[in-house]
Amino acid sequence: MAYYVGIDLGGTNIKAGVVDGEGKLINKLSIKTHAERTMEEIIHDMGQLAADVIKDAGMEVSDIEAIGIGSPGTPDNNEGLLVYSSNLPFNNAPMRKLIREVVDLPVFIDNDANCAAMAEAVAGAAKGTKDSVTITLGTGVGAGVIINGRIYSGFNQAGSEFGHTVLVSGGIKCGCGRKGCFEQYASASALARMTQEAANANPDSVMNRLLEETGHANAKIAFNAMREGDKVAEEVIDRYTDYLADGLANAINTFMPEVLVVGGGVCNEGDPLLIPMREKTMSRPYFGPGVKQTEIRLAQMGNDAGIVGAAMMGMTCVLDGKNGK
Amino acid sequence: MAYYVGIDLGGTNIKAGVVDGEGKLINKLSIKTHAERTMEEIIHDMGQLAADVIKDAGMEVSDIEAIGIGSPGTPDNNEGLLVYSSNLPFNNAPMRKLIREVVDLPVFIDNDANCAAMAEAVAGAAKGTKDSVTITLGTGVGAGVIINGRIYSGFNQAGSEFGHTVLVSGGIKCGCGRKGCFEQYASASALARMTQEAANANPDSVMNRLLEETGHANAKIAFNAMREGDKVAEEVIDRYTDYLADGLANAINTFMPEVLVVGGGVCNEGDPLLIPMREKTMSRPYFGPGVKQTEIRLAQMGNDAGIVGAAMMGMTCVLDGKNGK
Repeated sequence: MAYYVGIDLGGTNIKAGVVDGEGKLINKLSIKTHAERTMEEIIHDMGQLAADVIKDAGMEVSDIEAIGIGSPGTPDNNEGLLVYSSNLPFNNAPMRKLIREVVDLPVFIDNDANCAAMAEAVAGAAKGTKDSVTITLGTGVGAGVIINGRIYSGFNQAGSEFGHTVLVSGGIKCGCGRKGCFEQYASASALARMTQEAANANPDSVMNRLLEETGHANAKIAFNAMREGDKVAEEVIDRYTDYLADGLANAINTFMPEVLVVGGGVCNEGDPLLIPMREKTMSRPYFGPGVKQTEIRLAQMGNDAGIVGAAMMGMTCVLDGKNGK
Repeated sequence: MAYYVGIDLGGTNIKAGVVDGEGKLINKLSIKTHAERTMEEIIHDMGQLAADVIKDAGMEVSDIEAIGIGSPGTPDNNEGLLVYSSNLPFNNAPMRKLIREVVDLPVFIDNDANCAAMAEAVAGAAKGTKDSVTITLGTGVGAGVIINGRIYSGFNQAGSEFGHTVLVSGGIKCGCGRKGCFEQYASASALARMTQEAANANPDSVMNRLLEETGHANAKIAFNAMREGDKVAEEVIDRYTDYLADGLANAINTFMPEVLVVGGGVCNEGDPLLIPMREKTMSRPYFGPGVKQTEIRLAQMGNDAGIVGAAMMGMTCVLDGKNGK
């Protein structure tokens, strides 16, 4: 069995793990990112963490085939750079070179949402499929596309920004500069905003009471209020799942993946979210009679998706004969 | 040089051509489809037309590597079937088997919009690129996606139906059953509808006069009225290009293609369409600093796109070792 190291670089934590060729996590370690530091310091720590997790697993560097890094932003995996990241002080950061100064292994880099999709494709909800799309509902809407078992990110490695496709032309202003992006209507933050607006407009609602008790809007309040029978909350969930289903059906019509994986904390709400999400989504795609239909599944990889996906991305680069040195 | 036959199956005409390995059309023939006939009769004629065009080019069947068919609807290229077509009497039509009864060559089948994209990728506006998307603005909005030099159509070969992604959630009802699809806002038919509505609301406008002279709305009237200085027409074009740009920027953010090809008769309007289309589209995609940008180009292959693309699709199937027998 071949082994790979995956590094999940986040704004708060850097996580690294040793992963086998089937996506099984053997061992993992985590440190704080301290994103206020220089790029060189952060990347040096990533390399050191990779070295540490190999040793901690009782292995040698020579037991590992490659290191894969999942990072926010846009990579250049040919040159081994992180071209750009909105959250970290990285501009054309020479990740491959600096990591290899600490651990002498091939190093490959991709976007974190793409790595999460790779984890689901190799070892999670889309295991056994060649074409899948993973949509993550969080602060934003993340998207990763797997085509023929490989991450698809376009000619510039900046894709897929499916969360930044307009769903409501002329709608709510998005951080990306456009108006009406999918993520403004289907992210957890979007649900929190809809909750706040509906609570303000309905001061006597259960939802408004729960919101005042909580002190700030979040994606759980509407579900909790609906469980208490609140009609206002029910309408908010109905509207949210309408938008969500519109966007998910868009992803199906666009990519026709064998499996569409949906993840993010809001999925923990269970049936009150999932039943309308599935029913509304699957009533909308453009399948002719007799044509095989996409299956919607929940993400399975949880917090380890970043590590496992980064490692498996590294594995596919090795399999494709890419040069990570 | 290897040669391929491409067949472009339409509701009105069947066209076939001999094409070389670089996408150069050597010879072509055309017959009427007579779509009211049985599936067997139509497919037999497709095979006979392939035989005729080979002979007419002064070649033998043995000079040809394969036949590629571009058809409306959803193919099953593994089994050699047309699974479904909304315009033709084809349900699980055994195209490969029936064509091979006339001409004994490997036969491959794909969707016509996908073949048009393949033609642009091999010999047209996206020549020399690996990843491109071709959007055609006609009665509907057609889309074909080329990834790594191959048609991408999803696990069920039913994609990409990018024209049936919602751009205006809850908007105008589409023939596909959804509300607010891209094609309801960016097709030539959509522009004709916007023209009719604005002319009705502004009976004194130049546009209304031109519409009454023409007798029915089309995609040219607004442009002609704008050239006569009509403010109402200018507003229609402004709104149309807003929607169009929203959808094109969605395609860029989704696929990050090296080239986004735009085609269809409305592109013949030239700068009054193309300048706002390009400027509005390129102000919207989600590129970080330093990230390479997609280029927008006009389709070049014209009426031969279907034949050339079908032939080149057949070529890629041969190159990939697919069995067309």
